[in-house]
Amino acid sequence: MSTLLESYAAGRWFRPADDGEPLLDAATGEEVARISSRGLDVAAMVRHARATGGPALRSLTFHERAALLKALAKYLLEHKDELYALSLRTGATTRDTAVDVDGGIGTLFSYASKGVRELPNDTVVLDGGLERLGKGGTFVGQHLYASRPGVAVQINAFNFPVWGMLEKLAPAFLAGLPSIVKPASQTAYLTERAVRLIVASGILPEGTLQLVAGSAGGLLDELTVQDSVAFTGSAHTAGILRRHPNVLDGGVVLGVEADSLNCSVLGPDVRPGDPEFDLFVKGVVTEMTVKAGQKCTAIRRVLVPSSLAGEVVEALAARLAKVSVGDPRNPDVRMGALAGLGQREEVRKAVEALRASSDVVVGDPAGAPLLDGDATRGAFMTPLVLRARPGATEPHDVEPFGPVSTVLPYDGLDEAVALAARGRGSLVASVVTHDPEVARAVVLGLAPWHGRVLVLDRDDAKESTGHGSPLPVLVHGGPGRAGGGEELGGIRGVLHHMQRTAVQASPDLLTAVTGRWTTGAARADTGVHPFRKSLAELRIGDTIASEPRTVSLADIEHFAEFTGDTFYAHTDAAAAARNPLFGGIVAHGYLVVSLAAGLFVDPAPGPVLANFGVDALRFLTPVKAGDAIAVTLTVKQITPRSGADYGEVRWDAVVSNQEGQPVATYDVLTLVAKTWEEDTR
Amino acid sequence: MSTLLESYAAGRWFRPADDGEPLLDAATGEEVARISSRGLDVAAMVRHARATGGPALRSLTFHERAALLKALAKYLLEHKDELYALSLRTGATTRDTAVDVDGGIGTLFSYASKGVRELPNDTVVLDGGLERLGKGGTFVGQHLYASRPGVAVQINAFNFPVWGMLEKLAPAFLAGLPSIVKPASQTAYLTERAVRLIVASGILPEGTLQLVAGSAGGLLDELTVQDSVAFTGSAHTAGILRRHPNVLDGGVVLGVEADSLNCSVLGPDVRPGDPEFDLFVKGVVTEMTVKAGQKCTAIRRVLVPSSLAGEVVEALAARLAKVSVGDPRNPDVRMGALAGLGQREEVRKAVEALRASSDVVVGDPAGAPLLDGDATRGAFMTPLVLRARPGATEPHDVEPFGPVSTVLPYDGLDEAVALAARGRGSLVASVVTHDPEVARAVVLGLAPWHGRVLVLDRDDAKESTGHGSPLPVLVHGGPGRAGGGEELGGIRGVLHHMQRTAVQASPDLLTAVTGRWTTGAARADTGVHPFRKSLAELRIGDTIASEPRTVSLADIEHFAEFTGDTFYAHTDAAAAARNPLFGGIVAHGYLVVSLAAGLFVDPAPGPVLANFGVDALRFLTPVKAGDAIAVTLTVKQITPRSGADYGEVRWDAVVSNQEGQPVATYDVLTLVAKTWEEDTR
Repeated sequence: MSTLLESYAAGRWFRPADDGEPLLDAATGEEVARISSRGLDVAAMVRHARATGGPALRSLTFHERAALLKALAKYLLEHKDELYALSLRTGATTRDTAVDVDGGIGTLFSYASKGVRELPNDTVVLDGGLERLGKGGTFVGQHLYASRPGVAVQINAFNFPVWGMLEKLAPAFLAGLPSIVKPASQTAYLTERAVRLIVASGILPEGTLQLVAGSAGGLLDELTVQDSVAFTGSAHTAGILRRHPNVLDGGVVLGVEADSLNCSVLGPDVRPGDPEFDLFVKGVVTEMTVKAGQKCTAIRRVLVPSSLAGEVVEALAARLAKVSVGDPRNPDVRMGALAGLGQREEVRKAVEALRASSDVVVGDPAGAPLLDGDATRGAFMTPLVLRARPGATEPHDVEPFGPVSTVLPYDGLDEAVALAARGRGSLVASVVTHDPEVARAVVLGLAPWHGRVLVLDRDDAKESTGHGSPLPVLVHGGPGRAGGGEELGGIRGVLHHMQRTAVQASPDLLTAVTGRWTTGAARADTGVHPFRKSLAELRIGDTIASEPRTVSLADIEHFAEFTGDTFYAHTDAAAAARNPLFGGIVAHGYLVVSLAAGLFVDPAPGPVLANFGVDALRFLTPVKAGDAIAVTLTVKQITPRSGADYGEVRWDAVVSNQEGQPVATYDVLTLVAKTWEEDTR
Repeated sequence: MSTLLESYAAGRWFRPADDGEPLLDAATGEEVARISSRGLDVAAMVRHARATGGPALRSLTFHERAALLKALAKYLLEHKDELYALSLRTGATTRDTAVDVDGGIGTLFSYASKGVRELPNDTVVLDGGLERLGKGGTFVGQHLYASRPGVAVQINAFNFPVWGMLEKLAPAFLAGLPSIVKPASQTAYLTERAVRLIVASGILPEGTLQLVAGSAGGLLDELTVQDSVAFTGSAHTAGILRRHPNVLDGGVVLGVEADSLNCSVLGPDVRPGDPEFDLFVKGVVTEMTVKAGQKCTAIRRVLVPSSLAGEVVEALAARLAKVSVGDPRNPDVRMGALAGLGQREEVRKAVEALRASSDVVVGDPAGAPLLDGDATRGAFMTPLVLRARPGATEPHDVEPFGPVSTVLPYDGLDEAVALAARGRGSLVASVVTHDPEVARAVVLGLAPWHGRVLVLDRDDAKESTGHGSPLPVLVHGGPGRAGGGEELGGIRGVLHHMQRTAVQASPDLLTAVTGRWTTGAARADTGVHPFRKSLAELRIGDTIASEPRTVSLADIEHFAEFTGDTFYAHTDAAAAARNPLFGGIVAHGYLVVSLAAGLFVDPAPGPVLANFGVDALRFLTPVKAGDAIAVTLTVKQITPRSGADYGEVRWDAVVSNQEGQPVATYDVLTLVAKTWEEDTR
């Protein structure tokens, strides 16, 4: 008997209480492993996640969580060979496995990077700006995202056993949610192997990743308000999940990413011979054959101008003729097997349904000879192109989850968009065009129906990742039939796992809640210039309020001459008087901020290493000759950088005039040493 | 017979085919109006919204839509007296009606303002920054929000017949979605009157607002992928809507805002006699009595330190004793009637259920004498405070939708948070404390369970809008039992109605799609300095590439002396050499941008009126003495301001050194005249 897969539950590997069901090699039909979850205590798993994994994770900052994801990515990269070897048994070619394994590891790296660059080194994320809720400024509002004290259940499809797990795990982990992963049984042996690697690495805190090998029966019954389920799979199963009482009435958040009838549109500007014509044909063939077309993002509907339908079909036929099908162990094989014989039967049924209104124009539904492999026991299938007859409805309703696409002719961009919309919401569409007008019209027409739209042309083709590839930095999901969910998209995918809350408070208490200085909160002049304090010594609210400096006409004239910025508003009194906003000579905005720096800087060497930027600078009141400006600089946010001996300090800067009116407001960004000893320098 | 309410459907007022059901005055029991939707063609309403309202709305920019909302707000403000008069019949006092009518109009004003200030003068919203998807920069990603070509169905509760309509209408309208409003029958006469005013004003494009007076039977059957339903009301009705096939499987987006068991927490730091003690008691009494406690945000659970429970109850009793109950037509009445006798019966049943584990400690469940009004026919009720016995579960499950709250003693902040969480998700919580540590602990503990958390203390009390008031700029909604939806929150509420899509393209085609210049896209040097072009003449991509200017050590020294910014990295070669980031004297960042301005500015009077700000300035490479810098300035975004003779131009600025390395990148913000004639100046 082959290996019996185990679940990783409540801190140990669980061996099921029976011998389980066999899982077969997609290409050879041999048994790869057996699977069962008999006797698994899913309630204990949920308790373990809540009691152990969640608290451990939420005690870390986003940067600390990101560092663990990075370490995990490196670890898996070092151990990917064994995943590649096992992946062959799923029917995947090496190229297919790269999408799954390297794609998954790349997603971890991407989240590790975004987590450090785009999230604070904290446990709460602020959302949007401060809302002033009263005229006096004593009552303000701030949205923030907080981690949910819950569990993220992830139910994945069979086609990407590694990527599917990691692309859901990474954002949930960053968000502070422990994951319980339930892979589709068909290829669960590969997910199990990946989880064994992860557990053995010891990198993730215990309880933050658990695995259900086999049925997850009863798992949803354990979930409640703060828990979520992220599902990738069929619309049918999504419907079952949506009907679970804990989803309908219990507050469990369900996200669905379902197969959809994605389309690719050939722009009406493209002629045979144009680079875009070849890019289009190549894109369709790639999507039909990678993973043997078993991708929820694959192109099912090929929308082409009526006048070119014949030429497109011919080009597809020519290119598909070069696609060798067979056992993926043979390196010359370009397209491997479907996941199993049952899966192939489903695709064949779908093709039959499509033939009610479409004709097979490329490929033999009865199958063609294999380059290599067992045609009886392996789930092989010849790529098929159909061409829809006028008025066909099936191509918009029936999804063949395999190497099958249907060509639909269109007349005019409006019809192309209308046909695309008949898919009732898809994950992704592509439009191949080099015409800016076509690009704008089609993209804006398709956008409400899609989570992602790719525009392919000669300029981006070389770097394009293609129609079918979800990227960690872009949202993955789509409305309607595609499930209505949204995953990935960089930090967007993290925030989906958190609760957004509006906090209303006085500036002082809001500062206490958020750990970030709020306009209107108390400032602390400690008697020590804050530029003399290291990151360890600086406190939110530390302030330096400068003496005033009078700006003379000579200053303005000199600055104009010195910098070359002789804009008339600074140099020509008569012309400046006619300016509707100034009504006379004004100081340069850059002069104001330069003088402000002169007022707040402490010049001697110290912990402040550099000013690396300025955010949101606004000039609010013109400064005229004779005005006296002063600046107040206050520590707004302190972000230690992991792995560096300095961190970032964001300062609130307000330049005021002698009337107390704000002249300019901005944030100054500096790098400050974590520690500093005056005497040693 | 009283007035038979009409629906506003497909461009005309529809009179139902029967005499309808009576709607009664809450205080007198007299018939106010009759209601029916018999014979109403809801399918035609959906078609009308799709064919007429939606396209009209989406042909306008966000700024144009915002201007219509502002005009509508002004119109309703002028006509609010008739709404006030009619509102008395709902049982509302004048103070209650201010919340409904002025609150609704204020929401329109708020969205009008946000729409102009925070949305582009365009029809698409960009989300987040550019994602570079390839090393060469030829393939980039950008998220955007597009309007859905659908219909927004809004099903409102009886308690805020005007605000409920306007708070849903405003964000949907800005988002480009036509609305079909279905108010609760009980107070639909007031909504109908408001819709009559709106229709008569002629301000909103036809088809953007329709009204269903009476049952909306069959309306959801007409909806599909691009449509949405926003529901405010009971968890029970929400459950029915969630089970509709078009919601479960048809892609209709359902947002729910349901009643919840909101709590207010008295901080353990507060002592009787502190200002916060009185604020707490006052807040609870206000929430119990405004709208006779018929608010989904009212305080149902009063969490107090065990040691203070008795004193809180006494204080509540003293304050509630001053609340006069009766017919709201009497100006001395502080609390009016519930919406009807049926509603009161529901509340009485809920009180009975609560009494299983709580005791009535303030108020007489059998009722107390009225200041004014018909005790038999009017739906009056005496405010009741209960006190929970140890281990009580009912206060966390049973919602009395009236002037009823339950005091629950707690020991320690952890228990306070745990008790709050037993509400399984609420719209709002408040904590009354003046202690920063308490504020942080309670707010972060409550945040995952709530859409809004108010921190009340002596500092914000005067300006605070109180526990129960949703504000247009803050999100309204909550997880779990509160429905899981999110409304309002400024532009967040608009974006919820739009589809977020990731667009991948070459920089040139992305520029064409978004109408905003993308890094890497073509720049156009037209031979005319772009500062000499008016807003009408400027084009996205117009560029000025400057000559280089060498920065000398003398420049740096002079700038240090002139501005006073004598930071050692600019003035002390030995110390600068020890700086880990610079390793020698560097030019001031402010010097670099000042010189850059000198390089790109065209000095003579022209259409560019002012530089009003700078965004996202980052210093990327230090500039050392002898380096030659040059700047390229490119038109990135053009935003005409409605009602002004100028608009905003955002310029992409890149300062490079002689090696071509970027030294600084930023956006320059200018005001540019819409038209300009060189000769006349």
